[in-house]
Amino acid sequence: MATSEPRANGEEQDPNSANLRPPSSTYEYAWMHGCTRKLGMKICGFLQKNNSLEERARLAGQKNLLACDNGDGRDARFRRTETDFSNLFARDLLPAKNGEEPTLQFLLEVVDILTNYIKKTFDRSTKVLDFHHPHQLLEGMEGFNLELSDQPESLEQILVDCRDTLKYGIRTGHPRFFNQLSSGLDIIGLAGEWLTSTANTNMFTYEIAPVFVLMEQLTLKKMREMIGWPGGEGDGLFSPGGAISNMYSVMIARYKYFPEVKTKGMSAAPRLVLFTSEHSHYSIKKAGAALGFGTENVILLSTDERGRVIPADLEAKILDVKQKGYVPLFVNATAGSTVYGAFDPINEIADICEKYNLWLHVDGAWGGGLLMSRKHRHKLSGVERANSVTWNPHKMMGVPLQCSAILVREKGILAGCNSMCAGYLFQPDKQYDVTYDTGDKAIQCGRHVDIFKFWLMWKAKGTVGFEQHIDKCLDLSQYLYNKIKNREGYQMVFDGVPQHTNVCFWYIPPSLRGMPDGPDRQEKLHRVAPRIKAMMMESGTTMVGYQPQGKKVNFFRMVVSNPAVTQSDIDFLIDEIERLGHDL
Amino acid sequence: MATSEPRANGEEQDPNSANLRPPSSTYEYAWMHGCTRKLGMKICGFLQKNNSLEERARLAGQKNLLACDNGDGRDARFRRTETDFSNLFARDLLPAKNGEEPTLQFLLEVVDILTNYIKKTFDRSTKVLDFHHPHQLLEGMEGFNLELSDQPESLEQILVDCRDTLKYGIRTGHPRFFNQLSSGLDIIGLAGEWLTSTANTNMFTYEIAPVFVLMEQLTLKKMREMIGWPGGEGDGLFSPGGAISNMYSVMIARYKYFPEVKTKGMSAAPRLVLFTSEHSHYSIKKAGAALGFGTENVILLSTDERGRVIPADLEAKILDVKQKGYVPLFVNATAGSTVYGAFDPINEIADICEKYNLWLHVDGAWGGGLLMSRKHRHKLSGVERANSVTWNPHKMMGVPLQCSAILVREKGILAGCNSMCAGYLFQPDKQYDVTYDTGDKAIQCGRHVDIFKFWLMWKAKGTVGFEQHIDKCLDLSQYLYNKIKNREGYQMVFDGVPQHTNVCFWYIPPSLRGMPDGPDRQEKLHRVAPRIKAMMMESGTTMVGYQPQGKKVNFFRMVVSNPAVTQSDIDFLIDEIERLGHDL
Repeated sequence: MATSEPRANGEEQDPNSANLRPPSSTYEYAWMHGCTRKLGMKICGFLQKNNSLEERARLAGQKNLLACDNGDGRDARFRRTETDFSNLFARDLLPAKNGEEPTLQFLLEVVDILTNYIKKTFDRSTKVLDFHHPHQLLEGMEGFNLELSDQPESLEQILVDCRDTLKYGIRTGHPRFFNQLSSGLDIIGLAGEWLTSTANTNMFTYEIAPVFVLMEQLTLKKMREMIGWPGGEGDGLFSPGGAISNMYSVMIARYKYFPEVKTKGMSAAPRLVLFTSEHSHYSIKKAGAALGFGTENVILLSTDERGRVIPADLEAKILDVKQKGYVPLFVNATAGSTVYGAFDPINEIADICEKYNLWLHVDGAWGGGLLMSRKHRHKLSGVERANSVTWNPHKMMGVPLQCSAILVREKGILAGCNSMCAGYLFQPDKQYDVTYDTGDKAIQCGRHVDIFKFWLMWKAKGTVGFEQHIDKCLDLSQYLYNKIKNREGYQMVFDGVPQHTNVCFWYIPPSLRGMPDGPDRQEKLHRVAPRIKAMMMESGTTMVGYQPQGKKVNFFRMVVSNPAVTQSDIDFLIDEIERLGHDL
Repeated sequence: MATSEPRANGEEQDPNSANLRPPSSTYEYAWMHGCTRKLGMKICGFLQKNNSLEERARLAGQKNLLACDNGDGRDARFRRTETDFSNLFARDLLPAKNGEEPTLQFLLEVVDILTNYIKKTFDRSTKVLDFHHPHQLLEGMEGFNLELSDQPESLEQILVDCRDTLKYGIRTGHPRFFNQLSSGLDIIGLAGEWLTSTANTNMFTYEIAPVFVLMEQLTLKKMREMIGWPGGEGDGLFSPGGAISNMYSVMIARYKYFPEVKTKGMSAAPRLVLFTSEHSHYSIKKAGAALGFGTENVILLSTDERGRVIPADLEAKILDVKQKGYVPLFVNATAGSTVYGAFDPINEIADICEKYNLWLHVDGAWGGGLLMSRKHRHKLSGVERANSVTWNPHKMMGVPLQCSAILVREKGILAGCNSMCAGYLFQPDKQYDVTYDTGDKAIQCGRHVDIFKFWLMWKAKGTVGFEQHIDKCLDLSQYLYNKIKNREGYQMVFDGVPQHTNVCFWYIPPSLRGMPDGPDRQEKLHRVAPRIKAMMMESGTTMVGYQPQGKKVNFFRMVVSNPAVTQSDIDFLIDEIERLGHDL
């Protein structure tokens, strides 16, 4: 049940900060331990003079306001009690009468927690994570209780919960977090998200999101220009992730060739077949299952040793399908595969799609960002021939999650495919130009505002800023590749300079180095990466992904998309793998 | 092209604040115009002492730091130049060397903008919106330029852009914004979103979101308990909105009865039919189109005068479909329809579903919140008999957008339906219990963290807090209903106390009051609501939705979900409708 007593003390016990060097001065300590909190006091001091006595009486929690100018940072964390959040509850915040002051103080306290977290995120002496098993967190860590109750908790407990949530989470912005395609913590993007959540609206209509709807329109046009569609013409939407964007592409392709499926269902069409690389993302297969094609009608294409689709295999499989009397509909070319970072040869695939009149989709969820780089965009050569493109700024471009675009060359087809023209949702007799309403193009009704953070980052960095970021990440990957390609104890999963930032490799512990290849060695090697990863997570020093692929046993997949990463972090990863894996 | 000169001055020209009373003291003025900005100065003062001379030289922008304790709030807004953001760029923020100080200052400046916005949102003398047509915003308002460029903008311009974005947006948390089912600005939920975006991770695996994954699991269990499923057992996910949640329900139902569709496609099943009310949300029809059923196989059920499904009509239509040789699969019962707020009789529908062995889904996107209220939960009586339920905390419960749950009674079926078991994404040989990984249950791959804000609000309010909120909103609707049901110039769209907070009515201007009913009056009446709405938006005083429904011409649909609303706001709405509509 609820209690107003805080159950954990948060910051000072934070095991994440165990490695932190001692503060070099009281001032730095103050930055770390509650400066904005103290300043919150200052603000409440301002307001205080304007409050009536009655109002002051209501604000039970505030004591010792004038102490907030005391420069002795070492005491700062003890001043938390100056604003006694243990007597304040959610009901005391706005829109409550006289809720302004507690609201401001509470939000500043939260911002204090967040800015401390941000600072530590970029501090290499802070751990990436403080690992616990599910049952440990469920049992309650130092009183961090995840259970919900009938009665409210005090704001003090809520603030403790916020600290604990971050404490037991993963620092995805840490310079040594390499685990996912999305990493980093962009400050402009973050500010954009804070604003987005404060605006708390949705992309449904121009009526309720005028600025965001226009930003989306202009940004999508800019992205289409970069793809190379004439005049940036076409259509698109931001969707909740690359899997949904890819699902859109399959839906639109089906609507283009068999529009009657919208009303009559799949039985109105012949047996339709989709093609995608064996290295492609599983979302194409998921779309095949969900949309009623069936996974058996998603044909996987063979790849070369680098994970790139072999065009001849595509053509052979199209012919095979046609021979069986089925109808080839859609080809997905991956621009930046999840594991190898491979770019399928789009131009050659486009030739085949034109020859057989198939829809060409390019899944650039991971690789689309390279269009921003004059040096690397040639890897997507031919993308302008695609009918649709998925491009996730939340991956290679460092935009906070979620930010994924589905871009379509033919204007109007997105609405044609999805519109239901529900008069009760979209009123054509509004006073503004309702062609700006986006809701009926989407499979969603409400749609989260994913555009603002991206638009703001683009404003703040310029296209050149994204380009520099991408070039730097690819340089770092090449640095890693050069470092390990001939290093003892390493074996590359494929030869040659990686196309994207993906570097795939096995670490071979000394005990396996002399062993002849064969099932026994393979079996042992398969267990190496998981064991190193487990130790990494338990020590909290770094995180990198591993997986098997086809017949290849577990290997590490290193990726770089975080602007905070430097060569020293790459060096650290290699040192850490060797430290943890040496005796396996 | 880019410029480092700010193009609009934001706050002091904000037309939204035109109605604001003059500040009653210099202190209040300071609150409104830059207090945290000044306090940011204070913080940089702290840091300054710790900086080397070299570091200080890098921080070009900072002047006059010691002035920040000056209590004269009237000068506060001019101190913006004390930190000269015009010489700072995104590249100067973390992870840049010495980026901590500009990062903190920039974020505090953003928080200053946001807290001012929050304060005004709850201030009834502030407008709900400052309406502009799309072409006006596209042409650039007082220099607010939406176009993106190659070169970076200064942080000063970025801050101006943030202010302008809010200035030309809609205050969805304003006590007089009644336009959508989602409204309000919950401070705890907002803090939760700020934290979520700072944590910047996704729900894919326990590995990268340990705390959030467990919070989701516990919260979904709690929701299932409230539905009434034994022991809260079952499954579920938070999805990107009610439309996607409803789509999940159709997919799962199909998988339950025809699992072979997953691999073989819709051709492996007979012709399948879905049933939903003619008043239901269009997402069932959209799901029918997307998933390959076809909209013709989504049969609309007739409703009574209150918009509730007539069970006998369902049974008749099931028999009709069976007679044609098709297979009835799925029934959606709406708990809280979009326009009327109608609750379909779940128990009677469940009887029929059991009789004919159909999947019963309850779309409680809008009405699900009433399960939190002992007084109103009887309206969903029978919901425990459903196979799946959609419930959007982002609607009636005031959680910030997006927060929608799909809840499923049968455990394991969600994974059965959607899993692809991609070894390269989900490694079974991880060191923790991988049954906590959620990714393969979803149609998404990355999935936004929608749980934390909701979990935090539940902690902060308790179940009782949500109950009070819901009871209050329903009381306010009844107040509106009682006020206008016999008032001259009003006509209710349906008789009787509304089941939900939806109150649907026509306002009849004096010029139409004596007119006999008929096509001419209907045509004139159809134009009344859009014209009043347009004037409302142009004057910016309030916003309320209108729409036609079936043969009924445009009428207003009032809804209340914002905790800031009081009886005086309901009175204001009625006064405003009469003021604007009197001479039509």
